[in-house]
Amino acid sequence: MEIGKNFFIPMPVVLIGTLCSGKPNFMTVGWCARANASPPMISCGIGNHHYTPKGIEETKTFSVNIPSSKLLRETDYCGIVSGKETDKSEVFDVFYGPLKTAPMIRECPVNLECRLMQTVPLPTNTLYIGEIVAAYADENVIRNGKPDFPDIDPLLLTMPDNRYWTLGNYAGDAWSAGKELIKQE
Amino acid sequence: MEIGKNFFIPMPVVLIGTLCSGKPNFMTVGWCARANASPPMISCGIGNHHYTPKGIEETKTFSVNIPSSKLLRETDYCGIVSGKETDKSEVFDVFYGPLKTAPMIRECPVNLECRLMQTVPLPTNTLYIGEIVAAYADENVIRNGKPDFPDIDPLLLTMPDNRYWTLGNYAGDAWSAGKELIKQE
Repeated sequence: MEIGKNFFIPMPVVLIGTLCSGKPNFMTVGWCARANASPPMISCGIGNHHYTPKGIEETKTFSVNIPSSKLLRETDYCGIVSGKETDKSEVFDVFYGPLKTAPMIRECPVNLECRLMQTVPLPTNTLYIGEIVAAYADENVIRNGKPDFPDIDPLLLTMPDNRYWTLGNYAGDAWSAGKELIKQE
Repeated sequence: MEIGKNFFIPMPVVLIGTLCSGKPNFMTVGWCARANASPPMISCGIGNHHYTPKGIEETKTFSVNIPSSKLLRETDYCGIVSGKETDKSEVFDVFYGPLKTAPMIRECPVNLECRLMQTVPLPTNTLYIGEIVAAYADENVIRNGKPDFPDIDPLLLTMPDNRYWTLGNYAGDAWSAGKELIKQE
């Protein structure tokens, strides 16, 4: 059956960190995905009416922070109130990397420090494409040398039902589970 | 601690449908996100060496299909074998909408029919930005008039551990759970 075309795939929830007029600001964003393999780049679709684009354009940097489900209230708060009217600089403990203008969130288990590479203007949103110049993780989420996603405990957002979800159960190995369908000649 | 900067946020797994030289082809993609609110647009980051870009460029259309976890083997298979060497047109039951050149997968609970609007070339990948011109859902995943994500049962992919996951538990309501942090004046 046909449904409304304003459909959203399940989206990882991230907090975008920027310096706006010198002050750290954080915005909850669901339209974020990897964009380029090498060098690693990430793309974030942000509504043009938001405050965060101002910070990205001022500093040409931003951060992508992955909150765990423990931070659900704070994460949702950063999506409800705008930095235009509300100072969100004290919501989290902030740290900086070598770019110096991409505020990152100590409470988030993973942080990506990004340099703006390209902006793609669209009718109501803009894609901000950043190169990941450094990545940080809480030591508690590292297993066998890699960040472990059940330990990161990220949030997913679905729309238009507007609900947050945790990551579920392990379902299979990628580039592996489908091998048995490969026809042998 | 600093980690490898080639980090991936948890990604919804989709199957991109294209007609390549007149034959349906499907490719598993994890770098997909909404790009524009109105009109609804979706962006897909695809490696330049793949076969799918050929089909997108030929027809200026593509589909985004959301597989349920039941389709894990077929989904992974479409990410392992390339349409360059392997005919994937018989893996799924295919249907078309008004665009006529965006093959969609009957077995997937949600299908988005897209018209290519913009391509953004990046070093190793290209972002294909499409307008969603129609969306379809299996009637069995509709609850209260909306597609229900636990019924859709989508897959998430994490990297660099290369694992698939199901959607987990309900964690809270968006634009609501953080309201209690708004300071009353």
